[in-house]
Amino acid sequence: MINKLIAKIRKTNAPIVVGLDPMMKFVPDHIKKAAFAQCGETLEGAAEAIWQYNKGIVDAIWDLVPAVKPQIAMYEQFGLPGLAAFQKTIDYCKSKDLVVIGDVKRGDIGSTSEAYAVGHLGQVQVGSQRYYGFGEDFSTVNPYLGSDGVKPFLKVCAEEKKGIFVLVKTSNPSSGEFQDRLVKNGAAETPLYEIIGGMVNAWAEETMPEQGDYSYVGAVVGATYPEQGRILRRIMPKSFILVPGYGAQGGKGADLVHFFDQDGLGAIVNSSRGIIAAYQQEQYARFGGEGYADASRAAVLAMREDIGAALGRL
Amino acid sequence: MINKLIAKIRKTNAPIVVGLDPMMKFVPDHIKKAAFAQCGETLEGAAEAIWQYNKGIVDAIWDLVPAVKPQIAMYEQFGLPGLAAFQKTIDYCKSKDLVVIGDVKRGDIGSTSEAYAVGHLGQVQVGSQRYYGFGEDFSTVNPYLGSDGVKPFLKVCAEEKKGIFVLVKTSNPSSGEFQDRLVKNGAAETPLYEIIGGMVNAWAEETMPEQGDYSYVGAVVGATYPEQGRILRRIMPKSFILVPGYGAQGGKGADLVHFFDQDGLGAIVNSSRGIIAAYQQEQYARFGGEGYADASRAAVLAMREDIGAALGRL
Repeated sequence: MINKLIAKIRKTNAPIVVGLDPMMKFVPDHIKKAAFAQCGETLEGAAEAIWQYNKGIVDAIWDLVPAVKPQIAMYEQFGLPGLAAFQKTIDYCKSKDLVVIGDVKRGDIGSTSEAYAVGHLGQVQVGSQRYYGFGEDFSTVNPYLGSDGVKPFLKVCAEEKKGIFVLVKTSNPSSGEFQDRLVKNGAAETPLYEIIGGMVNAWAEETMPEQGDYSYVGAVVGATYPEQGRILRRIMPKSFILVPGYGAQGGKGADLVHFFDQDGLGAIVNSSRGIIAAYQQEQYARFGGEGYADASRAAVLAMREDIGAALGRL
Repeated sequence: MINKLIAKIRKTNAPIVVGLDPMMKFVPDHIKKAAFAQCGETLEGAAEAIWQYNKGIVDAIWDLVPAVKPQIAMYEQFGLPGLAAFQKTIDYCKSKDLVVIGDVKRGDIGSTSEAYAVGHLGQVQVGSQRYYGFGEDFSTVNPYLGSDGVKPFLKVCAEEKKGIFVLVKTSNPSSGEFQDRLVKNGAAETPLYEIIGGMVNAWAEETMPEQGDYSYVGAVVGATYPEQGRILRRIMPKSFILVPGYGAQGGKGADLVHFFDQDGLGAIVNSSRGIIAAYQQEQYARFGGEGYADASRAAVLAMREDIGAALGRL
């Protein structure tokens, strides 16, 4: 799946992933109105609204980008109906040949992580049968419990030729509270994120596809921390870096160069509300709520240009 | 909800939580057979099997213990049907007046953690209405992203009078890889779990109920690390400690004394497979698969005795 992702990045010339993180405040009124008319102001109504909203965006951008990243929390908040919309969104994106990165940030003790790995990337055994659960292509993983919480994901990645992105340095303001702590490392002192980056590199080296330069194991490093990105790019040469925090969280195109390799690969940049709620920004206000999907398309094109310029491609 | 938990611990004399973590290999044959006959060897069939299995256990133990802790991964692995069984299990346990701790280990950047907090503990806004998502009483939280990933949970806890248990020192063998790292702390060097314990204590102090000694904010510390438990008990005087790792993972009654306060409160010990799959152990084999729920009840009684003896109550 990492090789499919790379092929699609090359084809679209867009190392971009669209974050499908539908908050109700992003959903245009006409969609909410129709969904509530159909299902009432219920969890089912909310789920229908976010699904229709997602579908409009996917229809407008699927040919421009290699991948989407639905954030499961935005669906889980609506309980079971919300998670049904998560599943529909995954299935629809896969029908459009988009690579689907489930932003689930799961991680637990070994036997429990195995269940998460199976539920999101792999197949679960039921009697004599095997079934995919949610069936994403990639998922994000929280490494806080150490390697026995990550290894079940490595096993499933190797079996299914799928991938993970391990949280190394997250994009949020308080990510440094633990991740930047200087830890004793022999005689030296090293920030925790570098230690974790080193472990990701070891996991990456043992989880390589049969062909290609990049591992099934990638990392998450926020666009808001370009200096750390530069260091981590060097520590994890086999890992693709998933870069959140572009746009709404403050990351800019020029910040991104350090996350990429010299071949212009090695990173994929996420934007969520900057694309899916573009119509609520002044520069795309002309599209209005009815034109929200076209506004998303325009925002993807602008992001592609911004990143292309930063990488010296234009 | 923390005060309800404490009242129920006092009433049952059992600081015990039963981990409802149903793996298919634990489910007795007669239950699987009936579920597959009804729904086929499908995800729905698996979900029906784990629900019936849970129901039998809850019916056998609800009067003995204050709380249950379903591990969501064990349901999530079966996709949407599995999560429907998670919801049914929560609802059923609440109908038996059990305190429900959702072992979800969620945690993300601020706006995303807010969605998780709302989805598991709080109420989500849909138009003019508000709904509970999964509606647990407590949830576990992963603090790796720092305080802006935890604060949305504090807000919901205060509003709903519910609670969280923050992962501080997990029970698994590799928990030390990151959690035990010595980090620079002024002139001293302190293990990361102590730093996190200090932050939990600060969150606990700002999230107290109107009455009572314990905060809405607790911590997870594994029974497998009693020495760290002793230190953390002191660092977090306002926090209840949820102690996994008893039984199958190797923690023993005698290891538990350090997790409790002098009042015999302050900790609640989880056992999952040691109770729910008791019938598969030699000492309860006489119950057989058909008597699995009675075996669970016997295992709870033995655990109560073990902990009571360790705490000098018997």
